[in-house]
Amino acid sequence: MRHTISLLVENKSGALSRVAGLFSGRGYNIESLSVGVTTDPEISQMTIVTTGNDQIIEQITKQLNKLIDVIKVTDMLDVDHVEREMILLKVAPKAEKKFEVIELTNIFRGKIVDSSEKTFTIEITGDENKTGAFINLMKPMGIQELIRTGKVAIAREGT
Amino acid sequence: MRHTISLLVENKSGALSRVAGLFSGRGYNIESLSVGVTTDPEISQMTIVTTGNDQIIEQITKQLNKLIDVIKVTDMLDVDHVEREMILLKVAPKAEKKFEVIELTNIFRGKIVDSSEKTFTIEITGDENKTGAFINLMKPMGIQELIRTGKVAIAREGT
Repeated sequence: MRHTISLLVENKSGALSRVAGLFSGRGYNIESLSVGVTTDPEISQMTIVTTGNDQIIEQITKQLNKLIDVIKVTDMLDVDHVEREMILLKVAPKAEKKFEVIELTNIFRGKIVDSSEKTFTIEITGDENKTGAFINLMKPMGIQELIRTGKVAIAREGT
Repeated sequence: MRHTISLLVENKSGALSRVAGLFSGRGYNIESLSVGVTTDPEISQMTIVTTGNDQIIEQITKQLNKLIDVIKVTDMLDVDHVEREMILLKVAPKAEKKFEVIELTNIFRGKIVDSSEKTFTIEITGDENKTGAFINLMKPMGIQELIRTGKVAIAREGT
């Protein structure tokens, strides 16, 4: 099963490497990971998406809890939450498709963040279904580059 | 100096841990990191933000190039590029401040992605200046949680 794990860690050199090592030590691939500082510059927040056996993931979260840099571990499966990612997509549509690209970007509430004679760079945010649907629509337009932030998750209020 | 490094790596267990280890091995902290798959599911793209001595960062990028999982390393300082991040912010404004929160979200072209009786969860995208300005405006409103994706960067066309 796919798990989204949210971690609060001390913002120290080596914390990321230790966390990532716990997954790779069990042959578990991290599908996506985001890490950035919180409002407290001493503390970083990480979101990790991984797929695997629930029991093994439970073991990993227990071991994460034991790491000295780790302050808090939450498996977001246990809480009602909002999950979103951001993608940046550079497309090079043919002249007659440019209007369609702009229209689709608007429909998806995206933003064109850069444009050149031949390309548009588009930002889309949302859950995986939405970003995935947009990527599929853009495939025939000629995707030149795709950058994604990896998913982040935040608990809904009251959970 | 702050560097944003973009990496293409094989999507294999352990790649992230080896990359992160190169930084921590030199006592270098990774300020933010994002990793996710590209259109080719075998290949992931990572964006790493770190601050430090230019020469040492050049050494790190050379060593990154030598890692077996690493396909391509680009120090985005060398290319004209767009840099953006996404933040999710949960705020609990007083009743009389709710309207202001909604207005500011609109001004920043943000989106309210969840709301409860007492809180709003807001998504903002943009460069660090923009997300930083929004965070500062929200501080007096009562930030309950801040999640950020870490920065991603994409080259402008023609560079």
